[in-house]
Amino acid sequence: MKDLRGQKILVSGFHAPTLGVVEAFEDAVLTLDDAGRIVGFEPDGDPTGATILPTGWLILPGFVDLHVHAPQYAQLGTALDVPLEDWLQTYTFPLEARFSDLDFAKAVYSALIDDMLALGTTTALHFATVHVPATTLLADLCLAKGQRALIGKVVMDDPDQCPPEYRDASAEDAIAGTRAVIEYINAMPGNDGMVHPVVTPRFVPSCTDACLSGLGALAQKTGTRVQSHVSESDWEHDYVRVRTGRSDAEALADFGLMVPHSVFAHGTHLSGSDMDLMIAHQAGVAHCPLSNAYFSGAVFPLRAALERGLNVGLGSDMSGGPVASIWETARMAIAASRMLESGVDAAVAPEARGRGAARIDFRTAFYLATRGGAKALGLPVGSFEPGMKFDAIAIDPKAAKGTIRLWPGYDGDLVLEKLLYSISRANIATVWVDGLRRVG
Amino acid sequence: MKDLRGQKILVSGFHAPTLGVVEAFEDAVLTLDDAGRIVGFEPDGDPTGATILPTGWLILPGFVDLHVHAPQYAQLGTALDVPLEDWLQTYTFPLEARFSDLDFAKAVYSALIDDMLALGTTTALHFATVHVPATTLLADLCLAKGQRALIGKVVMDDPDQCPPEYRDASAEDAIAGTRAVIEYINAMPGNDGMVHPVVTPRFVPSCTDACLSGLGALAQKTGTRVQSHVSESDWEHDYVRVRTGRSDAEALADFGLMVPHSVFAHGTHLSGSDMDLMIAHQAGVAHCPLSNAYFSGAVFPLRAALERGLNVGLGSDMSGGPVASIWETARMAIAASRMLESGVDAAVAPEARGRGAARIDFRTAFYLATRGGAKALGLPVGSFEPGMKFDAIAIDPKAAKGTIRLWPGYDGDLVLEKLLYSISRANIATVWVDGLRRVG
Ligand SMILES: [Zn+2]
Ligand SMILES: [Zn+2]
Repeated sequence: MKDLRGQKILVSGFHAPTLGVVEAFEDAVLTLDDAGRIVGFEPDGDPTGATILPTGWLILPGFVDLHVHAPQYAQLGTALDVPLEDWLQTYTFPLEARFSDLDFAKAVYSALIDDMLALGTTTALHFATVHVPATTLLADLCLAKGQRALIGKVVMDDPDQCPPEYRDASAEDAIAGTRAVIEYINAMPGNDGMVHPVVTPRFVPSCTDACLSGLGALAQKTGTRVQSHVSESDWEHDYVRVRTGRSDAEALADFGLMVPHSVFAHGTHLSGSDMDLMIAHQAGVAHCPLSNAYFSGAVFPLRAALERGLNVGLGSDMSGGPVASIWETARMAIAASRMLESGVDAAVAPEARGRGAARIDFRTAFYLATRGGAKALGLPVGSFEPGMKFDAIAIDPKAAKGTIRLWPGYDGDLVLEKLLYSISRANIATVWVDGLRRVG
Repeated sequence: MKDLRGQKILVSGFHAPTLGVVEAFEDAVLTLDDAGRIVGFEPDGDPTGATILPTGWLILPGFVDLHVHAPQYAQLGTALDVPLEDWLQTYTFPLEARFSDLDFAKAVYSALIDDMLALGTTTALHFATVHVPATTLLADLCLAKGQRALIGKVVMDDPDQCPPEYRDASAEDAIAGTRAVIEYINAMPGNDGMVHPVVTPRFVPSCTDACLSGLGALAQKTGTRVQSHVSESDWEHDYVRVRTGRSDAEALADFGLMVPHSVFAHGTHLSGSDMDLMIAHQAGVAHCPLSNAYFSGAVFPLRAALERGLNVGLGSDMSGGPVASIWETARMAIAASRMLESGVDAAVAPEARGRGAARIDFRTAFYLATRGGAKALGLPVGSFEPGMKFDAIAIDPKAAKGTIRLWPGYDGDLVLEKLLYSISRANIATVWVDGLRRVG
């Protein structure tokens, strides 16, 4: 299917404008303006002159991935069995260091963007590397290929915590490099809300106080979002408390890093008051359930966070998370929530085994993958309401090499549940971002 | 690629003949006899006259799925958010009851077999329904389509536990129906080790003592494997103890149902002595980590079971498990093992949170998906050793619409790990069962 800017389209599918509520629509009329913005969405509108999708195709809002380490795509699904320290020192830091080579960076970043779009991920919040040139290259590639993206130069300047061959030379250097990337992205020709800069301290342990304060001031002054990790593991949570006397979330806030629509990954070990602090700052969490199984030592208390009012979306956390698919991430968010509820060790009595009342269902997972992630970022995407940009996935359930089997008698949002559990890339027929066709 | 019986083939890929040890091979020479049995596997053999697979293709042994409720394929990925009782009474039993209609049965079973084969599952242990005609139809379809299969008529005769419109009329009826299926399958023309009958009491709670004893005697007398569920949930585990005064595993053994190469699903709540009992009887466990997240209230202590010497393979448990893919099942086996090790609730101190020392890695998961499952069943498949039948998957990492990205510098079994985490159906180029091409 073609670009859809300025057109009227007849569509069937699903979206979740608010948490936990899925709306199904059939032959709705969607109208886009010339900039790809939705100006009309009428369930029973007049279809005269509308573009019609092939029979059986279903559309969903494009997915939002709130946590990607873009350079790590080369090692996706690799070495997940080694200890974290080995994973970082033997695999991850040496790989990221190679992004001083722009040819290598271009190869990895191009593959990543192509593959994420093909899986329906239309918006991504990317950690790049410490290198300014490779970071602006990632911004160029996202704009050219049409992935809505938020991109940050990774900052890691503490010599005690970072390898000598892969770190910022100083706090001043790190801040200057971050400023350069912000200025570059904000000045990109043709960048009409597609690519955004992000202030990106790797996490508190990898940065000096001077650096974190400087980045906080820069974020505040330039109105730039921040991304980092927060309370991912027992180690990180405890390290920050020992070093700063505060929780990780409190430290981030005190360094000025918790600006509105900032997103912090994991939050597995956040306390209730940490969550309230993030809510007060309009900051959100990237929930990365696949990665958490390997590296966090616990499951993020998602339902409790949502009930408190925290903004949450899903993150693949490539390559701490081993898959690129937000579909599989959503499935794991559901499964992990059940495991947090019931517990895992049968040797413990049932009533003491789990946390209780933690489960979410596919409706919530779908919201998190779409509007939830977009809301955390403060972006006008993730549902088909007027005012939103048209970022969407068209699914062909009968595609060759596809994996979806719809059966008569299973209707309504059971169809969405089936898609979520059984789709694969071959079923994704077309992907549009900003009303422009980018896949298919 | 074509049928390979009677041929010499030049192959690269991976297999895991023993637990935890992956062997990579490159340009090995594999020789099949006219019945599809491997008669030679030489890592450095003479390739003269060998059939050569397309460049870059990798082969693995076909996957074994140790737990499938074949009729439930129509509702795969459906209604996983409702309570178990509702899932059974509103969705599952009414669906299974529809298999009195052979046209419906043919449609569902055909789709299931095609889709499992396309995902690389060359052997499956199927629960059918209570209906004899639909069960023998499933056997016919597996033989015709070429899925190696073990198939049982489901037995559920206890009026207190089973719905009136979907159960065996009596213990005698249930046993007679089971005998009829055994005789039918053992007499199928052209069935040279492809399709096997299985005595299939749904689980102890759904059957009367008379029925279980009768089925045990039938299994012993005819030398037929048994499949059932064992200690899947706290409820089941406790129910059997109250009713029989024994553990579920002890009850199954005492009813004569634990014959060699029988397989029992889940075992989430098995004690160490239950495991030892199963080992003594040469019975195995179908580990179903995806389903367990929804219905078991705990994670099967896989590593402890393997260290004890219990035979274990993987089960999708369609549709209690929501996906058909043994690839995703293997990924979840790894993730669940990490979650059992570290625990899930961050509010609990780290040292009390998990069970400790429970993790498995991709090598073990791959073994379970191939030789582990085959060994539990006592079938000569699952690795490329002489004497094994040639059941295999050929992967094209560069297939159109595929999802694998191999990068230079990640070699050896890191390639297998990458395949396991990133493959999708479009990457599965060809599947052979018994040396005959069945997909691609
Ligand atoms: Zn991360
Ligand atoms: Zn089952």
